Amino acid sequence: MRRLLGPSIAALTAALIAAQPAAGGGFDPAEIPAYAGEHEAVYARIDSEIEQHLGQLQRWVRQRSISAQDDGVREMAELLAADLRQLGFAEVSLVETRGHPGVFGYYDAGAERTVVVYMMYDVQPVDPDWRIEDPFSGELVELPIGRVLMARGATNQKGPQRAFLNAVDAIRKETGGLPVNLYVVAEGEEELGSPNFGEVLAPYIERLRKADAAFFPMNLQRPSGEATLNLGVKGIIYFELEARGGDWGGPSRNDIHGSYKVLVDSPALRLIQAIASMTSKDGNTIMIEGYYDPIREPSTSERALIERQAATADDAALQKALGTSRWIDGLTGREAIERHLFHPTLNVNGIWSGYTGEGTKTVLPHKAVAKIDSRLPPGLEPEAAYAMIRRHLDKHGFGDLSLRPMSGYPAAHTPVEDPLVQAVIGVLNKYGATPEVSPWLAGSAPFYQFTRTLDLPFVFGGLGHGSGAHAPDEYMLIEPAEGTRAAGLAELEKSYVDLLYALSEGAGR
Amino acid sequence: MRRLLGPSIAALTAALIAAQPAAGGGFDPAEIPAYAGEHEAVYARIDSEIEQHLGQLQRWVRQRSISAQDDGVREMAELLAADLRQLGFAEVSLVETRGHPGVFGYYDAGAERTVVVYMMYDVQPVDPDWRIEDPFSGELVELPIGRVLMARGATNQKGPQRAFLNAVDAIRKETGGLPVNLYVVAEGEEELGSPNFGEVLAPYIERLRKADAAFFPMNLQRPSGEATLNLGVKGIIYFELEARGGDWGGPSRNDIHGSYKVLVDSPALRLIQAIASMTSKDGNTIMIEGYYDPIREPSTSERALIERQAATADDAALQKALGTSRWIDGLTGREAIERHLFHPTLNVNGIWSGYTGEGTKTVLPHKAVAKIDSRLPPGLEPEAAYAMIRRHLDKHGFGDLSLRPMSGYPAAHTPVEDPLVQAVIGVLNKYGATPEVSPWLAGSAPFYQFTRTLDLPFVFGGLGHGSGAHAPDEYMLIEPAEGTRAAGLAELEKSYVDLLYALSEGAGR
Repeated sequence: MRRLLGPSIAALTAALIAAQPAAGGGFDPAEIPAYAGEHEAVYARIDSEIEQHLGQLQRWVRQRSISAQDDGVREMAELLAADLRQLGFAEVSLVETRGHPGVFGYYDAGAERTVVVYMMYDVQPVDPDWRIEDPFSGELVELPIGRVLMARGATNQKGPQRAFLNAVDAIRKETGGLPVNLYVVAEGEEELGSPNFGEVLAPYIERLRKADAAFFPMNLQRPSGEATLNLGVKGIIYFELEARGGDWGGPSRNDIHGSYKVLVDSPALRLIQAIASMTSKDGNTIMIEGYYDPIREPSTSERALIERQAATADDAALQKALGTSRWIDGLTGREAIERHLFHPTLNVNGIWSGYTGEGTKTVLPHKAVAKIDSRLPPGLEPEAAYAMIRRHLDKHGFGDLSLRPMSGYPAAHTPVEDPLVQAVIGVLNKYGATPEVSPWLAGSAPFYQFTRTLDLPFVFGGLGHGSGAHAPDEYMLIEPAEGTRAAGLAELEKSYVDLLYALSEGAGR
Repeated sequence: MRRLLGPSIAALTAALIAAQPAAGGGFDPAEIPAYAGEHEAVYARIDSEIEQHLGQLQRWVRQRSISAQDDGVREMAELLAADLRQLGFAEVSLVETRGHPGVFGYYDAGAERTVVVYMMYDVQPVDPDWRIEDPFSGELVELPIGRVLMARGATNQKGPQRAFLNAVDAIRKETGGLPVNLYVVAEGEEELGSPNFGEVLAPYIERLRKADAAFFPMNLQRPSGEATLNLGVKGIIYFELEARGGDWGGPSRNDIHGSYKVLVDSPALRLIQAIASMTSKDGNTIMIEGYYDPIREPSTSERALIERQAATADDAALQKALGTSRWIDGLTGREAIERHLFHPTLNVNGIWSGYTGEGTKTVLPHKAVAKIDSRLPPGLEPEAAYAMIRRHLDKHGFGDLSLRPMSGYPAAHTPVEDPLVQAVIGVLNKYGATPEVSPWLAGSAPFYQFTRTLDLPFVFGGLGHGSGAHAPDEYMLIEPAEGTRAAGLAELEKSYVDLLYALSEGAGR
């Protein structure tokens, strides 16, 4: 595992691939009827225009849009907006924010049902370790699994998004319209943790809330064809906790000579004691009063999903992938899966104080800081979590520590019973990619914007295979080699066609 | 207070100036008879040759000898050796070590008594913030307190050491000999923590142990003339404590995604819990079994010294100087002084783990490290301290943490009743600089090499004033302005003359 940046989709994707045991037993998504519609004329157009469609993906990845480095971002927003106009979206705007602009588009198909499609048009920075010369050239590379588009953004997230728009294009050209009305809401700061996505949504919230479903196109097939479907994410709070010398004691101006510890309080030990008070001695049970109270029991359908995962869970394989020898508390199988989903975490992402160089410098540091996050299962709200932590600190005599919230949003999930979920599984079943379904990921993403702010059922996923998000040699599969079961570009686009028709036929609410 | 490098004399000096309340009450060093000898001819020679003597100090500071940067170090060793030969030391050698060479010299005066003089010939690096152009030019600068030699090494420690040799030179020229036999043992790595000083002493230990006293010339007067005399130092252990993923759990290869905390043990929390277990919740009482057991009660004379300090202790002033609002446990006055001297510390000099940059990267770090030191009062031996800490960790379930000793040596002290101490105070009294006396410093230096390895009484101190060790604008006072009571170079050299005669008359054992 590489280090992964904060709550972003690439992190989720990596987590998915590592964390999901093969499904089996209990609840069976294979029993959901495969989507039965056939749209042969549209499929044929996709097949005949696939080279142009691939060209669209290449055009997108050739436009740099590195949000962290403000490299090409606005140009990509304008490219996306122009593409939406070209595709017949009558209403298209750049939405200015404190950061990079969002893009809003609306295609009024005069249809009964309306789908919101979320897009991120920014990408991660690149390092020099790529096997190709230019990660922004749109190069096609032959790999054992088949021909791939190798580029920054190929799978995270330009490839699947533009494939979705290719499907829209094919339907329109063949039928003169779309089976659903379509909103596109895109942001250019997903890789930065979506700090201003609320501003992108804000002007349109009342309209968007009237839609029926929200969808985020994402390559979630393995080369073998197996797909995963996670029906939500945990929430998160992320904060800095800082102890520094002050009225309570300790050096308040700067570090002092270490020998003074004999008379002077230590902010570093204070931070250490404060953090220690928040967990059991083994670091694995959160000792903050009330923290586990909001955890609910799995619902009947969630329990079915858990049982299904448990039937084939391979703890040892995942432990090996993570380089760890055990799960906390000796958990295995179903218990580990349920803990994974339903428990909050308290994790020290980083801690620092004083002298951290070579040798033996002796100082009593005047401050110490930790970066702590807590993953929030559904039910544990960020505001409540922050309040309980603050109350714990105050109650245990650590009232002087400053707690600086840096992020906080709740979990998001859509029940497996939701017609949107059933429609997505039905389409996947049609392509022989019956997914492993999990109630939600243990990772976090601000998808509450769809499930809570917009109050819509939300699914992220689909056919298609890619790899290397946030890493060198990022790619998306275009033409599978013999033996590769994951969908290539044409099949992926066809599945998006089917999904739009399936949603027009009653999925969503 | 600036950050001070490890156990070195400059740290001690700064601690002295900050930490010592004015003396008063109980034991009175003023009652020790002033040294009564008069050596007029030698004094006169010092006065008449003072410009040449100052020239010797300048010659020493002009020779760079930055041990940390290996800049001029051997040249300085050779310069010192040559000077000793020139002063009539019949036996002079460079002593090769794993690091910079030591210098050994012996002057056989045919005298009854023998004195060991410790010298350090290395200096700290320089930064560009000096008010003079070149910290190695030997420049004389007029300050409000008088004319000073401003240079790296001026007071730490070339100035007082060469002043001592100037006194030797004057005695020899005037009398044809010396009143005591003289060993010089010098190292070029004091600023590095004296890692190889044992190697410098090793070939000569049996001879050195037959001496009567050991002395380290040091400017310890304030401009107002007040002097301090500390009769020892605490010992120290300094170690790194590291938790990393392994058989016990946790990620063993590299950092993993933070959301896995829900199933995976955290080395950072493990280190935090281990350190927390070693202190009380306020960080101020060491919870390691047996750690306070070796602490002895102050002796009668130590109690007298403490009472004297307590009589005029100004806790608020020292707290202000350190930027702290209180002493631990609400201590004040005599209690604080006794705690300061007689208690060990457990101090986190530094701690680090995981992500410490901007923003909200979410990782479960695979290792965490702390740099911890413990100051050891007399009686608490470094080997015993290490063993108790290891035992504590093992007993509390932290057997997997690695404890890496980086330094360890015991306290050193010489009782105030010792004839050497009485002689030094007698000389200071003669010059109206009755010292504030403390049993030892709360800081650390490897002076056990004198008190334990050589089994000699040992004093570090004397008249003279300097400032800026380890800092820009380091200086030593040469000619006091009117109103400055600290000794200038001539008076300092005369006090060294007196000290050598005083020691010849029966001080030491």
